[in-house]
Amino acid sequence: MSFRDDGAAAVDWVASYLERVGELPVLAQVEPGELRASLPASPPETAEPFAAVLRDLDQVLMPGITHWQSPRYFAYFATTAAEPGILAELLIAGLNQVGILWRASPALQELEEVTLDWLRQLLGLPEPLHGHIEDTASSGLITALAAARAARPDRRVVVCSEHTHSSTVKAARLLELQLRTTPVDSAFALRPDELDLGDACAVVATVGTTSSAAVDPVAAIADQAAAARVWLHVDAAYAGAAAVCPELRHHFLGWERADSIGVNPHKWLFTPMDCSVFFCRRPDDLRRAFSLVPEYLRVDEDVVSLSEYASPLGRRFRALKLWATLRCYGREGLQAILREHVRLAACFEEWVSAEPGWELCAPRSFSLVCFRKVGSDEENEEIMRRVNASGEIFLSHTRLDGRFVLRLAIGNARTTEVDVALAWAVLRREAAL
Amino acid sequence: MSFRDDGAAAVDWVASYLERVGELPVLAQVEPGELRASLPASPPETAEPFAAVLRDLDQVLMPGITHWQSPRYFAYFATTAAEPGILAELLIAGLNQVGILWRASPALQELEEVTLDWLRQLLGLPEPLHGHIEDTASSGLITALAAARAARPDRRVVVCSEHTHSSTVKAARLLELQLRTTPVDSAFALRPDELDLGDACAVVATVGTTSSAAVDPVAAIADQAAAARVWLHVDAAYAGAAAVCPELRHHFLGWERADSIGVNPHKWLFTPMDCSVFFCRRPDDLRRAFSLVPEYLRVDEDVVSLSEYASPLGRRFRALKLWATLRCYGREGLQAILREHVRLAACFEEWVSAEPGWELCAPRSFSLVCFRKVGSDEENEEIMRRVNASGEIFLSHTRLDGRFVLRLAIGNARTTEVDVALAWAVLRREAAL
Repeated sequence: MSFRDDGAAAVDWVASYLERVGELPVLAQVEPGELRASLPASPPETAEPFAAVLRDLDQVLMPGITHWQSPRYFAYFATTAAEPGILAELLIAGLNQVGILWRASPALQELEEVTLDWLRQLLGLPEPLHGHIEDTASSGLITALAAARAARPDRRVVVCSEHTHSSTVKAARLLELQLRTTPVDSAFALRPDELDLGDACAVVATVGTTSSAAVDPVAAIADQAAAARVWLHVDAAYAGAAAVCPELRHHFLGWERADSIGVNPHKWLFTPMDCSVFFCRRPDDLRRAFSLVPEYLRVDEDVVSLSEYASPLGRRFRALKLWATLRCYGREGLQAILREHVRLAACFEEWVSAEPGWELCAPRSFSLVCFRKVGSDEENEEIMRRVNASGEIFLSHTRLDGRFVLRLAIGNARTTEVDVALAWAVLRREAAL
Repeated sequence: MSFRDDGAAAVDWVASYLERVGELPVLAQVEPGELRASLPASPPETAEPFAAVLRDLDQVLMPGITHWQSPRYFAYFATTAAEPGILAELLIAGLNQVGILWRASPALQELEEVTLDWLRQLLGLPEPLHGHIEDTASSGLITALAAARAARPDRRVVVCSEHTHSSTVKAARLLELQLRTTPVDSAFALRPDELDLGDACAVVATVGTTSSAAVDPVAAIADQAAAARVWLHVDAAYAGAAAVCPELRHHFLGWERADSIGVNPHKWLFTPMDCSVFFCRRPDDLRRAFSLVPEYLRVDEDVVSLSEYASPLGRRFRALKLWATLRCYGREGLQAILREHVRLAACFEEWVSAEPGWELCAPRSFSLVCFRKVGSDEENEEIMRRVNASGEIFLSHTRLDGRFVLRLAIGNARTTEVDVALAWAVLRREAAL
C-alpha cells in the first residue's frame, strides 16, 4: 500500500469516527488492565501494513477510548479538536519541523509569533506582549514561577487561592517555592482583602477555576501585585477563550496588567491537544531564567529563538494548527460557538434552578454549571456513577464547601441543545431510581 | 468543502511534499522577519476555507521551511517522520484523547504502557522498567533530576561531563542544583577516574553526546553511582535507538543499571516530533516527586495515572504514533535502516580519512561524523556557510578541543549513498573555491 492509499484510509477512518462519535458510549466501559491484556506482549519482528493498525484501533483500542469528541462529553472541561486543527496535525507531522532555533524552521518561529499576536488581538490584550506555545498549562505555571523566582531571588513564596489548579501546587513544589493559599468568598473567588503578598515572588490568579470556573478579582490582585512588585500570573487555561467575545471581557478586567497569562486553545478554542499559550509582558525575565545557547546551536543570525523563553529545546510546529483554526473559523465563527456554549450552560442552569429537589452550587460565568441533587454526598456520587455507566453522557464532580458537587462542562463544538436536554433527562432519570 | 474533501487535499499535499522534498533547498533561504512581514497582521473576521491554509502553506510558508524530511539534511541530528507516524498523528488529533487520568482514556494509558514495554524489549533492557512518554529530553532531564533531588534532599550537586547536553544545564538551573562538570578523555567521553560524586544527588551520563556522539563509560559510572547512592540518568536521546541492533549494544554496557534513561524516538526511530521516552527503575521516587491528585480527578479506580510520574497533567495520545511506527517497521525494518545509517556514516568517514587536507575530529560510534578541513576555523566556517547557502545539503558544527568542527549527521530514512556522496562532493567543491 502507498502513503496515498493509507492516507485515504486514515482520513476515511477519522471522518467516519466524527460522524458516529455521538452514538458511542462516552466514557470507556472497560476495566483497568483489560486493554493491556488484549495487546501482544512483544513487538512484531517484521513489518505489518498500516491497515493492521487501523484494524486494531477499531477492534482492540476503541472500547478503551473515552470520547472527548462526543457532543455528550460534559466532564472536566469539554474540548474539541475541530477539523482544521486535525488536518493541520497531518501537515505538521508531514513537515516534521523541529524548532530548536530560528534557522531550523523560520516558518515555525515566525508563524508562532504572528499567530499569537492574532490571538492577542482576538482576546483584546494590549501590545507589546510576548507569546509562545507550550504543551500544557502545567508547563506554563513552571515557566511563570521560574521567571518570578529569578526576578525576586530573595523571595520564596507563591500566593494563590485555595481553589488554584493542582499545576500551581506541582510547579511550586518543583521550584521549591512555598505555597500560601488565600481564602475564597462565597463565589469561590479569591478574597483580595485576605491577600498577603509579603515575601511573595509570585501570585497566581485564576479566571475560570477548574473546580467551579470561579473568577478571581484580577484587577484588585493586580493593584496589590504591582504595589508589592510581585509577579502576577493569570491562569485562564479554560476561560481565556471567552475573551474573544467582548460581552464576556468584564470577567477579565485587569488581566492586561498581568506579568504572564496562560490560555489553552486545546481547551475551549477548538484546537487539538496539545496547544497551551503563554503570554508574557516581561520576556527579558523569561530569557534570564531560561536562555542558554550551546556552541552547536550558535549561529550568526541576530534572532532570539523561542526555546530561550522556556524549558524545552525542541518544539513542534503547533502554531500551524492554531493558525488553521483561527483562519477556518474567523473571529465571528469562534464567537458564535463560544456564545452558544454559554447560552446552553445558561439553559441547563435554568432547568436545574426550576426543578424542586435540585440546587445550583456556584455562580456561573462561562459554560460550566455546578449543581447537585438536594441530599447526601453518597446519593450524588451514586447518581454520577450511574449516569456515567449508562454511556449516554459523561460528567465529573468537584467538592465545594466540603460537599460533593456535580459539574456539567459545555465545550464541544458539536454539542447542541438536544444533547444538553438529554443530559438533564438522564440525570433526572438516574436520580429518580 | 467537507472534511473528507479537505482531508484528501491534505493527504495529497503531504504525499506530494514527501515525493519532492529531496529537490528542495534543505536550509530555508529567507531572512529573519521576511515571513512575518508577508503574513496578515490581523486575524480574519470571517471563516476561510481550509484550501486557503494549504495555498498559503505553499505560497507563503514553504520558503521558510527547513526541510528536516530531506534525505540531504545532515545537521544537528537528522530525523524522520515516517509515514506510519504521520498518519497516526491524524488519528491522534481525530480522537483528541487528553490523558489526565486513566478513565479519561484507558486506551491512551495502557497502549503507552504496552508500547514502552515493546521498546524496552527492542532495546534489550531488563524488566521491570517503568516507561512513559514526554515531549522532549529537556523535560526528561527535569523529571530525572527532580526525582533525584527528592530522593536525596541533603545533596544539591549534579555531576556530568563537560560535553553534556544544554538541557542538563537548564534542568539543574531550574531545580537550583549545582552543576559539576567532569573532564573528558581524547574521545570526548567522561573520565571516570575524574568522577567526584561526593555530595551529588545525580550523575548524568550520555551515550551519544550532541557535540560528537561520544559515549560516556556508563558501566564504570554506574559502579560509582551505586556505591555513592547517587541517581544515574543516562541521556541516550539520539543514540538510544541504536540499541535495537545487538551488534551496537556494547556502547550501552551498564545502562541497564541506570535509575533513569532517556531515548527520543523522534530523533532516530522514525517517529514524528515530539516523542521522548523516559524509562525509570525507581517509579516510586518519581511519584514521590510528582504525584498530586486534586479532588476533581479523584475516582475510585485503583489505577495510577501516568500524570503522577512527571510534571504535565494533560498528555497527548503519543503512544499511538510510536506503536504504529514499531508495527509498520517491525524489529527487522528498524534494524535495516539503523544499520544502513551507520554504514553510510562509515563510508563518509572513510572518504574524509582518505582525502589529503581533511581530518576526522572524533571517533565514530554511530551515524555522526565529526571532521574538518585542515586549516583555520574561519576557513571551515566559511565552507559550512557556503555549503548551507547552496541549499544542496544542510550540516551544522560544533567545537571540539577549542576548534571549529563540521558535523555530518545521518538519520533520515530516505538518505541513500547517493545523498552522502553528494554531500562529500559539495563539501570538497566549496572547500576548493
